[in-house]
Order: sequence, then C-alpha cells, then structure tokens
Amino acid sequence: MAGHDLEVRLRRIEGQVRGIARMVEEGAYCIDVLTQISAADQALRAAAVLLLDQHLRGCVVAATQEGGPVADQRIDEASRAIARLVRG
Amino acid sequence: MAGHDLEVRLRRIEGQVRGIARMVEEGAYCIDVLTQISAADQALRAAAVLLLDQHLRGCVVAATQEGGPVADQRIDEASRAIARLVRG
Amino acid sequence: MAGHDLEVRLRRIEGQVRGIARMVEEGAYCIDVLTQISAADQALRAAAVLLLDQHLRGCVVAATQEGGPVADQRIDEASRAIARLVRG
Amino acid sequence: MAGHDLEVRLRRIEGQVRGIARMVEEGAYCIDVLTQISAADQALRAAAVLLLDQHLRGCVVAATQEGGPVADQRIDEASRAIARLVRG
Repeated sequence: MAGHDLEVRLRRIEGQVRGIARMVEEGAYCIDVLTQISAADQALRAAAVLLLDQHLRGCVVAATQEGGPVADQRIDEASRAIARLVRG
Repeated sequence: MAGHDLEVRLRRIEGQVRGIARMVEEGAYCIDVLTQISAADQALRAAAVLLLDQHLRGCVVAATQEGGPVADQRIDEASRAIARLVRG
Repeated sequence: MAGHDLEVRLRRIEGQVRGIARMVEEGAYCIDVLTQISAADQALRAAAVLLLDQHLRGCVVAATQEGGPVADQRIDEASRAIARLVRG
Repeated sequence: MAGHDLEVRLRRIEGQVRGIARMVEEGAYCIDVLTQISAADQALRAAAVLLLDQHLRGCVVAATQEGGPVADQRIDEASRAIARLVRG
C-alpha cells in the first residue's frame, strides 16, 4: 500500500524531470526551469520524508519489539539516512 | 552548449528517478531507496546551481551592461530562485 | 552526557553567530560573511541530526518497548521534525 | 543600511541559539529543542539569501559596469557561495 503510494509519487517526479529536460531542450527561460527544478526537488524530499516515516514505523519498531542488536542497527541506518538528507 | 550539458544531466536524473521507482516496485530495502533518493536530490540541486550560474553569467550580466530597469528585474528573479532553493 | 555534548556544540554555534554579526558590523566582504554563515548553518544542522538520533534511541525505543499509543506519537513527532529539517 | 538590518538579524539569531543551549541545559524535551533549531536554521538561511542578494546588487553589478575580469570573479564567488548553501 505505502509502497504503491511512493511508487506513484516517484513516477510523477520522473515525469516532472522529463518535462524539465524538454524545457531546456526547447530553450525555456532559465528562471522558469529553476522554478520547476525547485518543485521537483521538493517532491523528491517529501518522498524521502515519507519513506523515512515508513522505515521508523516499520523496520525500527519491529526490530525494537524483537529486541537485540538489530534495533540499534536500524536506528544507525535511519540516522545516517537523515544526515544525508538534512546536510543536502 | 551549456544547455546541452544541462539537458544531459537532467536526462540522467530522470533515469535515476525511474530506477528508484523500480526499486520501490520490486520491494527494495527502504534505506537503499533513501540512499538513491539522496543521490538524485544532490544531482538535481547541482543542476540548479549550474543553471543559476548560467543565469548570472548570461542574463544578469547582459542586462547590467544594457543598463535600465531590466538588470534589477533579473537580479530580483535570481534572488527569488536562490531563496526557493536554499529554503528547501 | 549527550545533552552536555549538545550544549557544548550549541554554545560554539552561538559564538560563531556572534562572530558573524561582528564581521558584518566591521564591514567584512560579503562572500567571507557567507562562508561563515554556511559553516554555522552546517553546525546547526549537524546538532539537529545528533538530537534526532538521541530522540530515536531514547524516546522512540522506550515508548515502543512500553507499547501502547505513545510509540506512534513519538514517531509522528520525529517524522514532523525530520520534515521541517529536510524541507529547509 | 543593509548591513545594519543584517547585523540586527544576526544578533537575533545569536539570541535564538543561546536560548536553545539553555533549553538543552534545562533538560527540555528533544522535539521542542528541534523545533527551535529548525527556526534558527531558517533564520540563518534567510540571512544568507539577503546577503547574496546584496552581493549581486552591489559587488556583481558594480564589477560588470566597470568591465574587465573582476565581474567574472565576483560571479564565480557568488556561484560557489550559492553551491555551499544549496548543497546544505
């Protein structure tokens, strides 16, 4: 379900980026291209935030309930992924 | 020339996003998907920075050399585009 | 412990921002000021990532082990905090 | 003038960061601290955008009107500063 929603979003972003490449090909004004790049970038970041939320709700909670070292590992992975996103 | 380089980059990013949608479809591990989203996001932001550089070198410099109110307008547009990118 | 490390980092960032205000007061070159603002911004984001990691390891894990609705609430809060940081 | 506005903003951000350090010292809830860090981060980025705007309007336009290699150098500096900010 959640995977399907994410897939739909990513297909839409793929279409946005394809449209931007076409704008550049057709010589669109650079500021208009930039506006579209910002929109695609925001959509991509929103997809990342959705995916992180799913990771926390799914993998981290499951691993914590099981106990053991896997929970720590899942949180390490989540924190590294957050760092990559937050630092740009 | 510069437009061609930018178009190539955007086609590559389009391919990256298509690959990420396929990863989700095939049930890839969420952290691996996130790593690819971060990479596509960085590529998109680098394309935006390249485009802003071209805008400054092309449109802003040309408008400044001509003089008149267009230069101010070009810088307004650039600043608003920078604000959209920097604020996320 | 972790709180102490975070406090030390924040005191250092406070000093960085004070130094930047002084640079502006003394008429420093704008690009030099921007370089220092970028550095302070990165330090602030790194502090946020550290704090999120502590939230996941502490509050989220504790609430998940207890069970009940608090775990969901903790993850909601974490996801909203991540969204604010990632979207800029 | 513009320098004065920027200095006032930076003094305010300095105060925000000092307040956050105090929150941590007093054991505030991590999500509340994160909310304040996000606010300070946004204020810092807005200051950077303001400063870039001033750089474009002042240094870049002046150098372009003078002509010669300095205009290129000013735009190089601006583009590198934008890249540092946009990439996080």
